[in-house]
Amino acid sequence: MKNQRRRIESRDNTTYRAIVAIRRPRRSQKTGLIFLEGFRLCQDALESGVVAVYLLLSDSAAELPAAKSLEQQAGASVQTLILPDRLFKTLCGTQNPQGIALVCQAPPLDQLPDPPSENGLYLVAENIQDPGNLGTMIRTADAFAFDAVILTEGTVYPFNDKVIRAAMGSCFHLPLGCFSDIKAVAAWFRTADRPGTLLASDPLATEYLPFDLRLPAALIIGNEARGLSHEARAICRKRVAIAMPGRAESLNAAAAAAVLCHDLMQYRIGLNIDSNLQNE
Amino acid sequence: MKNQRRRIESRDNTTYRAIVAIRRPRRSQKTGLIFLEGFRLCQDALESGVVAVYLLLSDSAAELPAAKSLEQQAGASVQTLILPDRLFKTLCGTQNPQGIALVCQAPPLDQLPDPPSENGLYLVAENIQDPGNLGTMIRTADAFAFDAVILTEGTVYPFNDKVIRAAMGSCFHLPLGCFSDIKAVAAWFRTADRPGTLLASDPLATEYLPFDLRLPAALIIGNEARGLSHEARAICRKRVAIAMPGRAESLNAAAAAAVLCHDLMQYRIGLNIDSNLQNE
Repeated sequence: MKNQRRRIESRDNTTYRAIVAIRRPRRSQKTGLIFLEGFRLCQDALESGVVAVYLLLSDSAAELPAAKSLEQQAGASVQTLILPDRLFKTLCGTQNPQGIALVCQAPPLDQLPDPPSENGLYLVAENIQDPGNLGTMIRTADAFAFDAVILTEGTVYPFNDKVIRAAMGSCFHLPLGCFSDIKAVAAWFRTADRPGTLLASDPLATEYLPFDLRLPAALIIGNEARGLSHEARAICRKRVAIAMPGRAESLNAAAAAAVLCHDLMQYRIGLNIDSNLQNE
Repeated sequence: MKNQRRRIESRDNTTYRAIVAIRRPRRSQKTGLIFLEGFRLCQDALESGVVAVYLLLSDSAAELPAAKSLEQQAGASVQTLILPDRLFKTLCGTQNPQGIALVCQAPPLDQLPDPPSENGLYLVAENIQDPGNLGTMIRTADAFAFDAVILTEGTVYPFNDKVIRAAMGSCFHLPLGCFSDIKAVAAWFRTADRPGTLLASDPLATEYLPFDLRLPAALIIGNEARGLSHEARAICRKRVAIAMPGRAESLNAAAAAAVLCHDLMQYRIGLNIDSNLQNE
């Protein structure tokens, strides 16, 4: 059963205006609806099980194979809306939109395993303010097969446009969880069956890579300007610095996360190889 | 000899209008003048030997010790301009400017050693489009004590506002060089006294970290969307990938640069330790 396509002609159309409204960051966070633009991102979201509400196609894109395949993938419960190119463009705010977009429900922010997985790797974004940094961190955690990304409430909303764009689909690939603050993150982390390592990136620390630690591990990256919170410093068993022989006093938060996540990923792979060898 | 302070009262003032004009990216690139805001950044630039033209102070900041110390550091050849707070704010375009800014000459883009240094590490930004990415890459290269950052002409101008902000002063810490394209970079690199390694970050490569290579080394990071150019692929002796066991197909360009630069930095330190041990 194919869904009926519906046309929107005017910018005064009620549905159109509702979609315009969720393009405002606060509004989006309130309604829990998000707007995704471009074939690749929409397909990624649908494949990851995101619940779509509307599929939006511009006149120019409506008959493209990509559009039709997305329509099929979205299924009959998703209403397809066809828009004149200029209305579509207004909605997107990008220079050359592909003419394909989805309105869908933001995935819930309570997808963490409880308790943390035995060999789990978690990235914790503590009060990260820049959407580009958060998106890059989520993409990095996804690339290195982390088990989830955890946010504190002081961190930017992970489904705002800029975060989604920087994360390139990774927002939908791995579970996201949100806690009020770092203490709540630590309380969750302590429920692990085997005690793990809560570690924090800290330019002032005296311990460097490579790590030797117990999994599960949660790596905390602090705010871009202020660094780690006092609570994070107090709670963390292990604080690690990245050796910086040059003149810059610190790395960008997402760059530091990349270096440390890469090392943790390699460490976990090393452990797995060791345990496989022992089992032979 | 102290320079005379001069007041600007109106937005129609010729000097004020000239400064407003260089705030436009193209205009800035054309005149070779750049605008730096905030005490830390201005101090960093002056300490790095940047040639200042005007020191701008808002009424609220004009008598602060930080402002006076900058004025002294800048020297008598730099004219100090005092502006009403609202004019200063208009100029900055930031929410809460500190009231301290410099207009100075952009450092030249031909600061590379010729030939490349014996154990040099160079980061090459090939057609990097996002100012935040370029700024983060320059900051990373600076933190890891790289010898220079090299740009191709397709890369965003390194002294535009957003690059400077993301680089947090690192734009002034290490030499920057610009070449027309990657072939010209390779031609320069081949003039080294001892043949080095031109390597490129490439998600499709089959060789991974850690490296074993000859210094000097130049690491090429390609465009965010299109990746490495054909020329870069053809020229590079060594193409390296970062292992990504997760679902994301690639890392952000600046995140990939962070992981690879970190490894190169460690590699060079390891070589130095080895040669010191042999000399004992």
